[in-house]
Amino acid sequence: MYGLNATHDPALKSWVAGTHHPGTDFPIQNLPFGVVRRRGSSEPWRGAVAIGGQALDLAALHALRLVRGTPGDALEACADETLNRFMALGQAAWSSLREVLSGLLRAGAPQAAILQQALLSQSEIEFSLPARIGDFTDFYSSLHHATTVGRLFRPDNPLLPNYKWVPIAYHGRASSIGISGQSFARPAGQVLPAGAARPELMATRRLDYELELGILVGTGNAPGIAVSVDRAEEHVFGVCLLNDWSARDIQAWEYQPLGPFLAKNFATTLSPWVVTLEALEPFRVPWSREAADPQPLPYLDAREMRSRGAIDIQLEAYILTERMRATGAAPQRLSHSSFQSAYWSIAQMLAHHTINGCNLQTGDLIGSGTQSGPQAGQGGSLLELSAGGKQALPLTTGETRTFVADGDTISFRGWCEKSGYARIGLGEVAATVLPARQNAK
Amino acid sequence: MYGLNATHDPALKSWVAGTHHPGTDFPIQNLPFGVVRRRGSSEPWRGAVAIGGQALDLAALHALRLVRGTPGDALEACADETLNRFMALGQAAWSSLREVLSGLLRAGAPQAAILQQALLSQSEIEFSLPARIGDFTDFYSSLHHATTVGRLFRPDNPLLPNYKWVPIAYHGRASSIGISGQSFARPAGQVLPAGAARPELMATRRLDYELELGILVGTGNAPGIAVSVDRAEEHVFGVCLLNDWSARDIQAWEYQPLGPFLAKNFATTLSPWVVTLEALEPFRVPWSREAADPQPLPYLDAREMRSRGAIDIQLEAYILTERMRATGAAPQRLSHSSFQSAYWSIAQMLAHHTINGCNLQTGDLIGSGTQSGPQAGQGGSLLELSAGGKQALPLTTGETRTFVADGDTISFRGWCEKSGYARIGLGEVAATVLPARQNAK
Repeated sequence: MYGLNATHDPALKSWVAGTHHPGTDFPIQNLPFGVVRRRGSSEPWRGAVAIGGQALDLAALHALRLVRGTPGDALEACADETLNRFMALGQAAWSSLREVLSGLLRAGAPQAAILQQALLSQSEIEFSLPARIGDFTDFYSSLHHATTVGRLFRPDNPLLPNYKWVPIAYHGRASSIGISGQSFARPAGQVLPAGAARPELMATRRLDYELELGILVGTGNAPGIAVSVDRAEEHVFGVCLLNDWSARDIQAWEYQPLGPFLAKNFATTLSPWVVTLEALEPFRVPWSREAADPQPLPYLDAREMRSRGAIDIQLEAYILTERMRATGAAPQRLSHSSFQSAYWSIAQMLAHHTINGCNLQTGDLIGSGTQSGPQAGQGGSLLELSAGGKQALPLTTGETRTFVADGDTISFRGWCEKSGYARIGLGEVAATVLPARQNAK
Repeated sequence: MYGLNATHDPALKSWVAGTHHPGTDFPIQNLPFGVVRRRGSSEPWRGAVAIGGQALDLAALHALRLVRGTPGDALEACADETLNRFMALGQAAWSSLREVLSGLLRAGAPQAAILQQALLSQSEIEFSLPARIGDFTDFYSSLHHATTVGRLFRPDNPLLPNYKWVPIAYHGRASSIGISGQSFARPAGQVLPAGAARPELMATRRLDYELELGILVGTGNAPGIAVSVDRAEEHVFGVCLLNDWSARDIQAWEYQPLGPFLAKNFATTLSPWVVTLEALEPFRVPWSREAADPQPLPYLDAREMRSRGAIDIQLEAYILTERMRATGAAPQRLSHSSFQSAYWSIAQMLAHHTINGCNLQTGDLIGSGTQSGPQAGQGGSLLELSAGGKQALPLTTGETRTFVADGDTISFRGWCEKSGYARIGLGEVAATVLPARQNAK
């Protein structure tokens, strides 16, 4: 378990320009990891750390030979084209490198002059996936999402009896995970039109986003050996934003009895910067439970975790339509929720995932499931916000939306704020939907 | 599409001892690929081809520099520690290497003497997974399995309305896929005991196997570009046997609404030899459809495939209990079915998987779903054979089984036979269940 240390000190300032702005996602207290290269170049991908509007190139820093010992070994691993080898080193290595980077980037650090050459402007770089992702598992941890969506799919039976006992999850597709900035064609699939006797192949008419947190596994577990809920977070490298794109009409027709498949596996988009659990330490809050909720089974319970099992990460979804883009309008906010209201915590998700001996591996991605809040307007998907497509959302341009239209860019933002601490941002994940391909009618 | 050629000639004999036995799985007409090393050694893993009771070491063959050009390049890729690079080369490369190997192993081949040094006895080798598997997708292609299992889970609604339209599938877990010969502890999970109000954590009491074919993707498709049903098989490298281990009590409690998760992801076992589609060419048969079955949607239909869309692969499941092992008894056969009766073909599965633009990659594994025949006693799982655990199966030892017991070894065999052609075997997949770990009550 992490504690607060000198790297969290809200008084810390960096010598890097632009990091003092109170609205920055990436103050010196954050130091999230990503994989970058100069935009449009054929340079090797390598690890980097965001600092203000800049990125510290970790391969370049490694080449300077300023860092020795454990953090030096960790830094050397960050020069790879994915963060997997660094992530596999574990908590002590991650912390040691964070501490060193915090020192190097601090105002007054004697290395500031030489480190300038390892800085890249974030406007000049492009991103790759932070890790080579082996398996992708998507949970369903928001009670509010499960209840609202359940009501649409099963009006008579919205919340299934297992929900408050089992952290429900399913396996997703790893090959189609992309990085923020991607675009993809509206997918086609089988749909059963309302009242029809036979399905048709068509481009989805109910394309949706799902506002999720992505959790990246740092260290795995051996096959057959469950991870205890008390120690589960030790396996977590960090978190990012995740858009679990969904085609609701395809989903409705295909999901029985084995769950969503083509409705989800055409695209999943991640934000490029992975914020470590250590950076999120100041924002721990108690688990979200009502008095009437059942006590979790012992393998999902841990006294110590009850008081700090959740994390208050604010989440927002935005839309930018073609008309907004043409008129220079800003993206319009669609919803605002917090990961704090998730019914199941990160530790519970990992403990559950491994209780049967399933082995997690470095680079595995775990989705939190759509994060919806308890109030109207806090739904983490258009399905929820439009009441299943029945209530169109008015946009500032005079347009309306029930689902995502061609040319729409959907973006999410995430951040933590708390009095007495530096704001920690997750940055942004954005992706744009293109028209369906011709072969899909 | 493959045709019959000189490599299928039933008159072909090999100079390798033991390949003339009519019951061998691995005559010279087969030539399946696997990844091997000497048992217990720390030698590098490398590709091999089964021939009778021997394996031709492809790294050793490559080192002899006997093979040039396209097949030589293919052979060089087979010296890797997985077959991925070879599989990515595509049909022309696979065929060219098959043709060369058929020539080298043929009785009278002048290279026989020198090739002796590249032969390993199958009794002296161990196997690794044939490919680095990115994503694992499991289909549900047996109508008989879907109907029988559907009746157990949903007596009033056994076959869902989408079944004869949609090749139903879900994503499985890649990290827990193991190779034949593995053993694993009985998994634990949440179970809702009959009549209970609250679930409990316990070792599964309804551990089951599922008799499936594994299909290995050779060449992938770009994101957004669907694979047509006419050309889908060009992407398939070959097939093996697959045991999709399942915990039925965990499954019943967790599977709504997102499908099976912990009930399946603790272990999946593959047979070591991958039989190419080219070797299976003589055993093509028409698709299995009744007159009353709906016409598939055009993206799942192809005139040419109707007459040869299916493959008659015989499948058997066996059990070897501890008592059988102690008394030297042979494994007892539990069921016999054929992949021929699958409702959805391999080409249909791939075309469906990609119709939404989902990208398949070299090394992806596709499970056929449990292959059950139409008759009683042809169920591809104990759930079916024991009528949901209600009718115990008598064993020759006087024991009975409703589900798999600790110490049981479950094995599958698969093969093709047809008058006028050499028998083509898939070999065997076997795995043994160990007692639950102590921490799982």
